Amino acid sequence: MEKETVRIENFSDAVFAIAITLLVLDLHAPDITAVKNGAELLAFLKGEWTTYLAFTLSFFSIFIMWVNHHKIFKQIYSRNTAIMFANGLILFLVTTVSYPTALLARFFNGEAASIAVALYTGIFVLINISYNLLWYIASRNKKLLRPGITDSAIRKIRNNYLYGLPTYVIAFGISFRFPVIALAISMLLLVFWAISSGKIKLAQE
Amino acid sequence: MEKETVRIENFSDAVFAIAITLLVLDLHAPDITAVKNGAELLAFLKGEWTTYLAFTLSFFSIFIMWVNHHKIFKQIYSRNTAIMFANGLILFLVTTVSYPTALLARFFNGEAASIAVALYTGIFVLINISYNLLWYIASRNKKLLRPGITDSAIRKIRNNYLYGLPTYVIAFGISFRFPVIALAISMLLLVFWAISSGKIKLAQE
Amino acid sequence: MEKETVRIENFSDAVFAIAITLLVLDLHAPDITAVKNGAELLAFLKGEWTTYLAFTLSFFSIFIMWVNHHKIFKQIYSRNTAIMFANGLILFLVTTVSYPTALLARFFNGEAASIAVALYTGIFVLINISYNLLWYIASRNKKLLRPGITDSAIRKIRNNYLYGLPTYVIAFGISFRFPVIALAISMLLLVFWAISSGKIKLAQE
Amino acid sequence: MEKETVRIENFSDAVFAIAITLLVLDLHAPDITAVKNGAELLAFLKGEWTTYLAFTLSFFSIFIMWVNHHKIFKQIYSRNTAIMFANGLILFLVTTVSYPTALLARFFNGEAASIAVALYTGIFVLINISYNLLWYIASRNKKLLRPGITDSAIRKIRNNYLYGLPTYVIAFGISFRFPVIALAISMLLLVFWAISSGKIKLAQE
Repeated sequence: MEKETVRIENFSDAVFAIAITLLVLDLHAPDITAVKNGAELLAFLKGEWTTYLAFTLSFFSIFIMWVNHHKIFKQIYSRNTAIMFANGLILFLVTTVSYPTALLARFFNGEAASIAVALYTGIFVLINISYNLLWYIASRNKKLLRPGITDSAIRKIRNNYLYGLPTYVIAFGISFRFPVIALAISMLLLVFWAISSGKIKLAQE
Repeated sequence: MEKETVRIENFSDAVFAIAITLLVLDLHAPDITAVKNGAELLAFLKGEWTTYLAFTLSFFSIFIMWVNHHKIFKQIYSRNTAIMFANGLILFLVTTVSYPTALLARFFNGEAASIAVALYTGIFVLINISYNLLWYIASRNKKLLRPGITDSAIRKIRNNYLYGLPTYVIAFGISFRFPVIALAISMLLLVFWAISSGKIKLAQE
Repeated sequence: MEKETVRIENFSDAVFAIAITLLVLDLHAPDITAVKNGAELLAFLKGEWTTYLAFTLSFFSIFIMWVNHHKIFKQIYSRNTAIMFANGLILFLVTTVSYPTALLARFFNGEAASIAVALYTGIFVLINISYNLLWYIASRNKKLLRPGITDSAIRKIRNNYLYGLPTYVIAFGISFRFPVIALAISMLLLVFWAISSGKIKLAQE
Repeated sequence: MEKETVRIENFSDAVFAIAITLLVLDLHAPDITAVKNGAELLAFLKGEWTTYLAFTLSFFSIFIMWVNHHKIFKQIYSRNTAIMFANGLILFLVTTVSYPTALLARFFNGEAASIAVALYTGIFVLINISYNLLWYIASRNKKLLRPGITDSAIRKIRNNYLYGLPTYVIAFGISFRFPVIALAISMLLLVFWAISSGKIKLAQE
């Protein structure tokens, strides 16, 4: 049985690659007139630390989403309209990540921090849901999956994404009161996904 | 017989992927000085609803155009100069979608709404015509098509795009008087294409 | 003998696709405050005609450059450092096209028109030279080319690019006095390449 | 044994292609009102020489990084989590190159030159380290490499990147006192890599 999803994967890879690279457009150089010497340039760059933080966090978040996207599609062999549009929803959300990233960069260090962090953690709640949706649609019908995939492998993948959901929701929920802690949780989740993505690989392939 | 159109498809896929991802560049974060706290940030974001509407509509429009582009090229096996340039016209129009999107985002909620919506629905009239042109050029000469394609399949594809044309023209026509209704029709057309793209798949492949 | 140049071609295709799509970023929507109603929006858009002209011209120029790039690489089977960097030079120049395009868009309709057109036609002189350079390097050593390519085919390709050079130089030369005519020549050259690219195809493949 | 790294390479290629093409976004056309005639346009463009210098240097730097990325991945056949993230680090740094490029373009010709050049040469120190890290991780475990690769080939590649490190560190170190010389060294390194990348090819493949 041939894999039918190659074109979806290639298109998705391109969108991930563009979305991850466009993040850099929010690193702004200062106006020439605003900076007179090296010390002022360094002072300006130090003041931009929230931008670097948001950029780095979003870059590796999208990178790990891409790794996970591939892991899921490695198990999907056929496509239907529902899979096409669940994937379209993922790409839509991945594309928009740069927007809450820009908001986080500008407002993390100020009074609007809680709303900025809530929007930022909120997009990851939605992305987690869209990944769960994709796997739910794909695994509902075993004919769409890689021939020979075991029920235990299907469950493992499901649990991997499903167990992430409450953590994202918690990070979102506490953003309103403790934005710094919520962002720290997001970073820990990133490390968790980086490690867990390695583990699933060993188990499935 | 080998498929000669792989390189056109890959290049087109890349252009679709970039065009769809660049749309996000029109989601603007507010200036730091314009927003003092979380409530003001939320108020700013609420005021941006036309931007989100235009962004979402254009994202899924380009996504469905990409799905349809692939469906057509799945049936095209050889290329000639006319096909190259009909496809170039499609890519040109798809690339420009972000421009009427930006106009819609800025002017949908105001006195210039009718012109903004007319330009937005107008680009989809042109894109529909360019898809019809591509299929007309390709299907005029059966040697360019997938070996074994039936006349009824050729007609089905033709009708699928041809029947869309009057609907787009109607949406364009009423934009000048009823921009909200015209935009609602555009959204319904999006849903129609999403469903019909699934149906053609089942019938042809 | 296997083709070694696949990765160069894929990378080049991606750069062409991005460069052609980024052109749209120079279509600027007016500020919300600058336009009060539909008539003012239309008036603004009419005033932007030089932007649309430059955008359209550059889009199809890059599109035809991409077609020609593929035609040349279809005949190149091996690579060496010189080919890598001749190709790098082409990509460098193709990437920069958006810059003279932006200058043309802003200054074609004014006193700086002659310089703007000269810069615009000048970049195409350089691009033509870089294509000639690539083919010169590749065809100097027949071991780099497609096995079985005839000397007459090599000459045909060479002449196709070499004969373009004086025309581009003439367009560049008269830009300083007659910018409108120089731009018209550039458009005619575009049509010539579109047709000739079709012809070479029939002759070589 | 099949190569498992194709998808990493394709994704990386896309990021390299986008990063190299986005550099052009920092070539800014002057405002229409700032330039009245051709002489003023030329004067403006002459004043932009630092922008062109930074753009050209960064374009060919990323181009050579891409060539080297491919050379390394030609020898890597399997992947593990460590390789995935060492590669992610490379892509992260390559993506950010446009930021110090913009700083160099704006501040090379002024009092902040030493800091701008130090940041610019500094990013290349980090990129060199990330390439060394990737090869260290990959070559530590010969099962990840191309079957049949010799120890001497492994060492040659290692030395090629390791010997670059002190030179980048020196360029970085003297940036603070002699920014012009540091930038000149960066350019010489570029030429060195262009030539050495050709040499490795001959030796390994």
